[in-house]
Amino acid sequence: MPRPVAIVGIGSTKMGELWKYSFRDLAMKAGTSALTDAGMSGNEIQALWGGNMSAGQFLNQEHVAALIVDYVGLAGLHISATRVEQACASGGAALREAILAVASGYYDIVMAAGIEKMTDVDGGTAAKILASAADQEWEALMGATFPSLYALIAREHMQKFGTTSEHLAAAAVKNHRNARNNPLAHFRNEITIEQVLNSPMISSPLHILDCCPLSDGAAAVVVTSAERAKEFTDTPIYINATAQASDYLAVYDRREIATFDSTVVASRSAYQQAKLEPKDIDVCEVHDCFTIAEILAIEDLGFFDKGTGGTATEEGETEIGGRIPINPSGGLKAGGHPVGATGIKQVYEIVQQLRGEAGKRQVNGAEIGMTHNIGGSGATCVIHILSRESS
Amino acid sequence: MPRPVAIVGIGSTKMGELWKYSFRDLAMKAGTSALTDAGMSGNEIQALWGGNMSAGQFLNQEHVAALIVDYVGLAGLHISATRVEQACASGGAALREAILAVASGYYDIVMAAGIEKMTDVDGGTAAKILASAADQEWEALMGATFPSLYALIAREHMQKFGTTSEHLAAAAVKNHRNARNNPLAHFRNEITIEQVLNSPMISSPLHILDCCPLSDGAAAVVVTSAERAKEFTDTPIYINATAQASDYLAVYDRREIATFDSTVVASRSAYQQAKLEPKDIDVCEVHDCFTIAEILAIEDLGFFDKGTGGTATEEGETEIGGRIPINPSGGLKAGGHPVGATGIKQVYEIVQQLRGEAGKRQVNGAEIGMTHNIGGSGATCVIHILSRESS
Repeated sequence: MPRPVAIVGIGSTKMGELWKYSFRDLAMKAGTSALTDAGMSGNEIQALWGGNMSAGQFLNQEHVAALIVDYVGLAGLHISATRVEQACASGGAALREAILAVASGYYDIVMAAGIEKMTDVDGGTAAKILASAADQEWEALMGATFPSLYALIAREHMQKFGTTSEHLAAAAVKNHRNARNNPLAHFRNEITIEQVLNSPMISSPLHILDCCPLSDGAAAVVVTSAERAKEFTDTPIYINATAQASDYLAVYDRREIATFDSTVVASRSAYQQAKLEPKDIDVCEVHDCFTIAEILAIEDLGFFDKGTGGTATEEGETEIGGRIPINPSGGLKAGGHPVGATGIKQVYEIVQQLRGEAGKRQVNGAEIGMTHNIGGSGATCVIHILSRESS
Repeated sequence: MPRPVAIVGIGSTKMGELWKYSFRDLAMKAGTSALTDAGMSGNEIQALWGGNMSAGQFLNQEHVAALIVDYVGLAGLHISATRVEQACASGGAALREAILAVASGYYDIVMAAGIEKMTDVDGGTAAKILASAADQEWEALMGATFPSLYALIAREHMQKFGTTSEHLAAAAVKNHRNARNNPLAHFRNEITIEQVLNSPMISSPLHILDCCPLSDGAAAVVVTSAERAKEFTDTPIYINATAQASDYLAVYDRREIATFDSTVVASRSAYQQAKLEPKDIDVCEVHDCFTIAEILAIEDLGFFDKGTGGTATEEGETEIGGRIPINPSGGLKAGGHPVGATGIKQVYEIVQQLRGEAGKRQVNGAEIGMTHNIGGSGATCVIHILSRESS
């Protein structure tokens, strides 16, 4: 059996259009705040994994894991530093590599970070870069962008299950409401169903308020063996499961388009590892890059029957205090979506929830949490189950 | 102690300007040939790590690990697929993640692949993309390219140790001679010292024949637990050590510029893991992106005293049949350098050497081999020690 692993420190920047901060600044802020939270000095970190989708295209900078180590001030230690890229699931995938590394026994104390600086290019360029997570030859070259791919998925879901624009809007409204109480969220304003429905159409049926923003941001966590975790904190959060699955890169190639098989397969593996069922999860951060993505996620994760995610959302079952609180942070929609950082940002939220440190957005009595991080239009899914108790 | 790991299958494309083959074709060829070599079907692969430096910039395609799984024909299995990027050390880093994953016990049989398609853009664009592995803000923006950074390093080595242009040329001449017998090499022509010295100056003192080419290519290996290795092959090659180290991203920031501390630190860790010394290594593939890089490597790995790499090369100590055969494949210089694939290509060669299947370029009686894979101008070094015997 793999060696048990825990998280003993978390750090995050604010998410948003952070004009004043460079990629390097964001790395430094998130990394040092995770160290501070863990009460350790950088000298104790033995290796780093950095999740980043596309600094190459956004900033003409590859090799960013070495850059992160350098700007966090650890270059003189010559530690191993590795960048992981799984499109918008880069953060979750980076954490996963850090977990495998500690589980293997090669390392005892490592850092997983996620960073993206997206607002140094114009919106059109950003859309083109993001589309490079889709199938370039069979989707992007033909003009498909992420909003249009998710719009196709939404149309299919509507036709098949009767999901409505109001159902989709309800996810955005709930996430904006949650983000009010998240000081690091990109947007902290409340919105209404009407505002969503009257906002400009991006790719029918998705309005602009069905879409997450382009954000800058970074987050980091310190990972260690469960055995050593209490050296650093009284409230380690244990990794109960780490799972990842893939799918055909192009949406048209898939068995079905209103289900992400990557989510189904990864979550099945995660539940099995943790010996848990969907009903055991107390709080979950899902990958709502578009409102339809949240509907898919809560169905494919097994929280609601297929096709009922829209009504469940409209009926408040995913609110804080509902049957299964989804995205208490505000999710990607309101919390922000700095693509390579998002997977770690989700873990940051869940660790706060399980520690009982989430303030006004606290899910009462949360003992077991989940993160769900999607790459592209579903060709990658990374899932983690975290818990207050070691398994 | 981490669980021991072995390589049971290898595959590689030819390296070169492969106009007829796309990124996808290369992935498919390398992946399927590694499976064939391991005598297994794709259904047995539980996860994949793909090393790639910059498909984002070369091809507007991120998320390439999902793409590889798709085009290798495994998308329907929904296995975990993760891209690793450490500039030109992406391949070595991908293998390392695969090793950690099997060592952890999470997986039993996985694939590590490296791929790069570099010749779909013009040379100037390629140079700019490659420079994104350097420090964009403090090196590349000021006009530094990889040849110029390595030229600085060469000048320092010359001034400090009396290394000459002839010493550098001797590495290129030897590597071209070795590549004659490597059917997959990019260049298979012999060259002379005079030809190197009379070839166009790229960045003084580096002539064009001191520089490796831009290559397309892919290579893949199948990794499993040492315990299960003999189920697949009579000649598993065991991983005795996997080590990785970083350094300041920008060359000017370093303690010293004619030594790669990343190589020194990673090799020290590797020797320690394997309980070996430099004299125990029978054959080594080093990262000779420029001739000076080979001189640095053979010193920093401990094969020769600092400053004597040039004379050792000139005197034939690194020839096949010499004291320590370096780059029997032809290295990066003649074998080719498809950046993200190089680290796996090196392992492909060493596995062939240790199996005794290297034909006319066989190092007699090779029992223990090493690979040395550099990212950027030395901010990353990945080292593996491989052996015929399990440790």
